[in-house]
Amino acid sequence: MLGGSVDPAVLERVRGWRPYVEAKLGFRNHWYPAVFARELAENAPVEVMLLGERILLNRLDGVVYGIRNRCLHRGVRFSQRLECYKKGTITCWYHAFTYDWKDGTLVDIITNPNSALIGARKIQTYSVREAKGLIFVFVGDIDPPDLSADVPPGFLDEGMAINGKRRMVKSNWRLGVENGFDASHIFIHKHSKLVVRNDIALPLGFAPISAGDNTREVLGEPGPKGLYDLLGEKSIPVFEGAIGGEPVIEGNFGAKKVADNISIWLPGVLKVDPWPQEGMNQFEWYIPIDATTHCYLQTLGRMTASEEEAASFRREVDEKWVDLALDGFNDDDVWAREATEEFYGDDRGWIEERLFETDMAIVEWRKLASRHNRGIQRPEHL
Amino acid sequence: MLGGSVDPAVLERVRGWRPYVEAKLGFRNHWYPAVFARELAENAPVEVMLLGERILLNRLDGVVYGIRNRCLHRGVRFSQRLECYKKGTITCWYHAFTYDWKDGTLVDIITNPNSALIGARKIQTYSVREAKGLIFVFVGDIDPPDLSADVPPGFLDEGMAINGKRRMVKSNWRLGVENGFDASHIFIHKHSKLVVRNDIALPLGFAPISAGDNTREVLGEPGPKGLYDLLGEKSIPVFEGAIGGEPVIEGNFGAKKVADNISIWLPGVLKVDPWPQEGMNQFEWYIPIDATTHCYLQTLGRMTASEEEAASFRREVDEKWVDLALDGFNDDDVWAREATEEFYGDDRGWIEERLFETDMAIVEWRKLASRHNRGIQRPEHL
Amino acid sequence: MLGGSVDPAVLERVRGWRPYVEAKLGFRNHWYPAVFARELAENAPVEVMLLGERILLNRLDGVVYGIRNRCLHRGVRFSQRLECYKKGTITCWYHAFTYDWKDGTLVDIITNPNSALIGARKIQTYSVREAKGLIFVFVGDIDPPDLSADVPPGFLDEGMAINGKRRMVKSNWRLGVENGFDASHIFIHKHSKLVVRNDIALPLGFAPISAGDNTREVLGEPGPKGLYDLLGEKSIPVFEGAIGGEPVIEGNFGAKKVADNISIWLPGVLKVDPWPQEGMNQFEWYIPIDATTHCYLQTLGRMTASEEEAASFRREVDEKWVDLALDGFNDDDVWAREATEEFYGDDRGWIEERLFETDMAIVEWRKLASRHNRGIQRPEHL
Repeated sequence: MLGGSVDPAVLERVRGWRPYVEAKLGFRNHWYPAVFARELAENAPVEVMLLGERILLNRLDGVVYGIRNRCLHRGVRFSQRLECYKKGTITCWYHAFTYDWKDGTLVDIITNPNSALIGARKIQTYSVREAKGLIFVFVGDIDPPDLSADVPPGFLDEGMAINGKRRMVKSNWRLGVENGFDASHIFIHKHSKLVVRNDIALPLGFAPISAGDNTREVLGEPGPKGLYDLLGEKSIPVFEGAIGGEPVIEGNFGAKKVADNISIWLPGVLKVDPWPQEGMNQFEWYIPIDATTHCYLQTLGRMTASEEEAASFRREVDEKWVDLALDGFNDDDVWAREATEEFYGDDRGWIEERLFETDMAIVEWRKLASRHNRGIQRPEHL
Repeated sequence: MLGGSVDPAVLERVRGWRPYVEAKLGFRNHWYPAVFARELAENAPVEVMLLGERILLNRLDGVVYGIRNRCLHRGVRFSQRLECYKKGTITCWYHAFTYDWKDGTLVDIITNPNSALIGARKIQTYSVREAKGLIFVFVGDIDPPDLSADVPPGFLDEGMAINGKRRMVKSNWRLGVENGFDASHIFIHKHSKLVVRNDIALPLGFAPISAGDNTREVLGEPGPKGLYDLLGEKSIPVFEGAIGGEPVIEGNFGAKKVADNISIWLPGVLKVDPWPQEGMNQFEWYIPIDATTHCYLQTLGRMTASEEEAASFRREVDEKWVDLALDGFNDDDVWAREATEEFYGDDRGWIEERLFETDMAIVEWRKLASRHNRGIQRPEHL
Repeated sequence: MLGGSVDPAVLERVRGWRPYVEAKLGFRNHWYPAVFARELAENAPVEVMLLGERILLNRLDGVVYGIRNRCLHRGVRFSQRLECYKKGTITCWYHAFTYDWKDGTLVDIITNPNSALIGARKIQTYSVREAKGLIFVFVGDIDPPDLSADVPPGFLDEGMAINGKRRMVKSNWRLGVENGFDASHIFIHKHSKLVVRNDIALPLGFAPISAGDNTREVLGEPGPKGLYDLLGEKSIPVFEGAIGGEPVIEGNFGAKKVADNISIWLPGVLKVDPWPQEGMNQFEWYIPIDATTHCYLQTLGRMTASEEEAASFRREVDEKWVDLALDGFNDDDVWAREATEEFYGDDRGWIEERLFETDMAIVEWRKLASRHNRGIQRPEHL
């Protein structure tokens, strides 16, 4: 069982962002990056799970297609024993139901070529886009909007070179988003090797100056829709940590100023600008896999003037920044999200948590996501 | 927990074979082979589970008895620490409740010989029959019919020598039956070593000539009740596999014709005649253990004229046919059933499957089993 | 999930001791020993679970304090990454919420020193007492009574030297109590090395002389409340084990008479006097951890005239009695309780068990516990 049902007693008591609490398996009818393009070789299908749905991706003549990884007939997964007898098709290993990768048509049944089902049934297909070295999949049942509606501003810009890594994290996807967009969580990074080695100015936290107005929504149609955290301008960074007025710990007084703009976008993507230093951005996704797992897909981007410069940047990411930033800084975040899963795992955390001032940006995100998502993934979709 | 409860939302929507869908733990009031006779030595109790019930079998002076493996008093299993202080009895290791193997009477309590319970309580016993080297146990609460009512025709015939093996498979028992009785599933055996080495004619599948009338029921009282698949005569075997008219794969054009008659019998036994070659039969059981496990008990039979010939045949099974047929061919079936479990495991497969023409024999089996079983095993029986 | 919900269908059918059956997670508002005092060093917090609640204990200037091991803010456990920046406080590793150990006050939030929550919130604290080398914790929400209300008579007496061990057992806590207080269970100890080496007289069981009146309640306010088993005087010990009148096994005809007085006390503590020999007592707790685990905390006590004599006795326990009695005898009990868990684990054992005469003392315990406990721990307390 992939989970996904939500405690009704919690839903009754949740205030202000009920759709968000219902979306344990994510928001439906959005684009999600599934894998890096380099992970998909020609005609070598790869199974992924997104929002609890098993999807089989395959690259044919360079183009990537996606189908539900479950035969219509008896529900087995094609990927349990991949069989392909004709280019452009996939044949189920059990009774030889054969489907077309492009539109999902049941084009033949080898074991019974007279079957009335041939040509009359289709398996579910998924819209796929390849961009910036990532394979994006649309999970849902409406006509997909343009990919640009579901990625942060700047990500698809010409000249923006992108590279990164992905890994599975044992927490619900929302604990990923909220960890990333959380201004105060930087307390866990105080001893990060990135902060020390890259000479970054990193406070211990932020003291908001006023109670409200610390975020700015972006809601243009068709998207992207998201939220900027304005704490950078509307709070006092806390470098001198104290308990009862007595100094006990300090932030890092580095020379490099970073993270001026932090924003979160539907269906769950963070942009940090600049990061991990001037001229670079971090774009990262928290992709629902099942109720207790998300894929943490981290990318770094830099504007480049030529493909040569872009290739050089992508190498730099592999050789330097994965270790220093994507692991060296964000490993702490992965650890923290998994540590939070116990409290929210049975849904009670949503009503038992006690938020404080700097969490108001997270609250705004929950409300925006509740109002502007394109649908909720439910167990019956699986 | 042994499972066994069925999703009520599925039951409401299932058409035509609801009792079958309810029978996740099997059909009650039938005979099931539990172990091979050779597995039960004199006075060496063996625990088995059948339909979720823990049963303790023991051979005393050659005769096999069965009792519930759970003390009446505090519910512990005798087999956790077997204690016997007097022939014909078993004593619970915890408080020394002592039962008679033959009728289950609580004949004594060593720790309190004055107890009013002595002679006034019985533990559940099971009817047991030994035949053809197998130990059959009747799981239910009615007077058992003759064993012959629950085994395929021919199995108990004088001169029929039987031998085989058994193993546990991680799928519901019905996925075992339906895999075995499924005419098109032979597609998975196309590279089987039995087919190649024994020179068997094995098509890829079958194209039925007409939509109905492809099975023949046998419903005589008291049994056995079952169904013959007539596809052999009423379909065209598919040896030339094609996709869109283009040849892509071939069946095995062997010299040996086998499997003329395939039949399925309550409570879930397959007979294939002849198999794996002329003069031999395969009889195989898919025995419910718990909701997600069945015991796959495979036997081969041949008519013999003397005990010497029978013994020779049984050796031949051990030395040749287990490797070549029972493993060499059927290992693929075991793999396929376990691959199917995910889809049917939460019961939704029964309403989401999309059957095709050659599955009509399976549908007939479901209907026959729904009408003619002697009862449904439910969680409250455990 | 820690479990703890009880099958409502069972509750409807249980007679006479429903609160006891409801108390799968134990009785609330009682004192429980959590660890030995020697397990808690100065300023080295230790997490324990009691009745499903995660509690963090810490010793500061010699005094032990306890708080809920779950930050108010986002529910993470402090013990996942212990951080302390000022003596007397604990700081959550995630957002630096900082609490006072003594009263639980949120004394500061390092990441936002302006927060309105500071000084206005408290984390749950637990009353703690150190006595006889054990740390007792009060789990509940009323003003705790004196510790003496929840331990057996004699345990806190001046001069009573105490030592022992603790371990986790995979059974519900009630199966621990009932195994310990069960007069007939001694059948499992018939080959115990303690019995043989220490020359103990140990029958196989007890035949009660009359049906009732075999226990004596102690119900003084404020406690301890409990029950003596009077079987010693009101039954005939069974040394000659027979089945159908025929002798089959004997108890141990040792010279040492022990266990004259056996009593059970709320919230689940056994006293055996004398044990394992004249002049010594065994006091043992069966502490609810979660629905399927209890902590078995075993101690032996002896009256001593000086601290030197007490220290010598505690050494004797470590060097001799742990091996001979606490392991050598009670390992069988641990095994038996775990063997019983399957039957009672889904709550059905409470209605399907078939008790006999010597179990009447257990029944009296269930009734007393149902009437005199101070509250039931429920899943919503977790």
